[in-house]
Amino acid sequence: MFTHETTLRVRYGETDQMGFMYYGNYAEFLEVGRVEALRSLGFSYRELEEQGMLLPVHDMSISYHLPASYDELVTVQTSIVKPPSVRIEFTYVLLNAAGERLTDARTTLVFVDRITGKPTRAPQALVEVLAPYFVR
Amino acid sequence: MFTHETTLRVRYGETDQMGFMYYGNYAEFLEVGRVEALRSLGFSYRELEEQGMLLPVHDMSISYHLPASYDELVTVQTSIVKPPSVRIEFTYVLLNAAGERLTDARTTLVFVDRITGKPTRAPQALVEVLAPYFVR
Amino acid sequence: MFTHETTLRVRYGETDQMGFMYYGNYAEFLEVGRVEALRSLGFSYRELEEQGMLLPVHDMSISYHLPASYDELVTVQTSIVKPPSVRIEFTYVLLNAAGERLTDARTTLVFVDRITGKPTRAPQALVEVLAPYFVR
Amino acid sequence: MFTHETTLRVRYGETDQMGFMYYGNYAEFLEVGRVEALRSLGFSYRELEEQGMLLPVHDMSISYHLPASYDELVTVQTSIVKPPSVRIEFTYVLLNAAGERLTDARTTLVFVDRITGKPTRAPQALVEVLAPYFVR
Repeated sequence: MFTHETTLRVRYGETDQMGFMYYGNYAEFLEVGRVEALRSLGFSYRELEEQGMLLPVHDMSISYHLPASYDELVTVQTSIVKPPSVRIEFTYVLLNAAGERLTDARTTLVFVDRITGKPTRAPQALVEVLAPYFVR
Repeated sequence: MFTHETTLRVRYGETDQMGFMYYGNYAEFLEVGRVEALRSLGFSYRELEEQGMLLPVHDMSISYHLPASYDELVTVQTSIVKPPSVRIEFTYVLLNAAGERLTDARTTLVFVDRITGKPTRAPQALVEVLAPYFVR
Repeated sequence: MFTHETTLRVRYGETDQMGFMYYGNYAEFLEVGRVEALRSLGFSYRELEEQGMLLPVHDMSISYHLPASYDELVTVQTSIVKPPSVRIEFTYVLLNAAGERLTDARTTLVFVDRITGKPTRAPQALVEVLAPYFVR
Repeated sequence: MFTHETTLRVRYGETDQMGFMYYGNYAEFLEVGRVEALRSLGFSYRELEEQGMLLPVHDMSISYHLPASYDELVTVQTSIVKPPSVRIEFTYVLLNAAGERLTDARTTLVFVDRITGKPTRAPQALVEVLAPYFVR
């Protein structure tokens, strides 16, 4: 399993009138989590797109345990739990500064060829860089 | 089971550079779906809040089958699949104008007393208005 | 001068913890205002793009007089105050259900050729359909 | 004049299908710019609110010179150009990594007493910490 951490601060515009981060805005935190996880492995999602590969989200599930407050620093722990194939699965744990678990989430994304619009295999280089994390 | 339909048009600001609605923006469509479903039953979420009840989202799961395009009319079919208790569960099917299924989703929300911050029972009037939909 | 009205309801996700619509979310209301104004004239912004014309925003100014509340119906009065050339200018007045003026805004957009990336003239058909509104 | 710099990366969810950051999402970048500017002066906007002071935006103007791309690092230079009174004015210059000017903006915010809802003077401590920047 590969895990990477990144920290984000909740913006005012991300809160709602309940006084906490709006439930829909967590998706952007997850996006940042997985993009930074890939970057730490040497993969820029931007470059993947420029090279003709899209990575749309196929499904997401998220459980909200504790709310995130305005201006709070939220750590996103992003993990890749199995080798990518045509899909890549990320799991996420969001923690506040006190280490309390705010949110658990999971997303599955699909590698898609930009030209054909069809699912395709994960880039071989990504499979290889992740391989050591999945050796038993 | 109780079902209600509402239709929304995808805004430009809701798309991303992949050319479709950003995966995180569906949460707002689900919000509108359930708020309008409750309104059709005579319940204003706004008034619920003013009467001291909050309804935060506890969990969400969503599957993206086909993307929603800019300016597309998306119909949100919102269902309440069982009688509300301390929680209320909504399921959603999003369809495009051609009747194709874009997205399936499910959310669970919790009734919370604004003052105590503790979970509380669904308003009795809501339980009653929904009761006929769950008679076997 | 050409004026068109459209009405939008403030979503929960558009509020912030001050209890009103977040100041950045008005831009989407303005977008809907001008898109619907163009549609009422027979112009779909989506089709303009498909025909190779982009319409990025060049500048925006906005004054917030009264806040818009959650679930409030906001009427966006969108006006085109002079004939479009390479640019098109929209002015907006946002009113609540009581007719109170919430916001004044103005945006300038530029017609851009998608291929060359260069500014270009407004579509002749749009100039013509607007001409009667600017006869003295 | 007081100036502070902070750098933000454009998220995928902040782009639109034109392939650049959506014009409405800059407001959040400005928010982060001014909040971090205040923090660098020892003022937490969060604490100001907790102490009973709100700071709603009264007006905003923004000029878009060059678009911000996905994943681009954008530096927000936030300046306070005159001593705060009942209002505080911020100006902003957004630059890309190459130092090109993307955007100019200006916002005026009003100090409001949370209880009375009425405009009030800027906190004396903020006036004092800024005073040296406005000595001729």
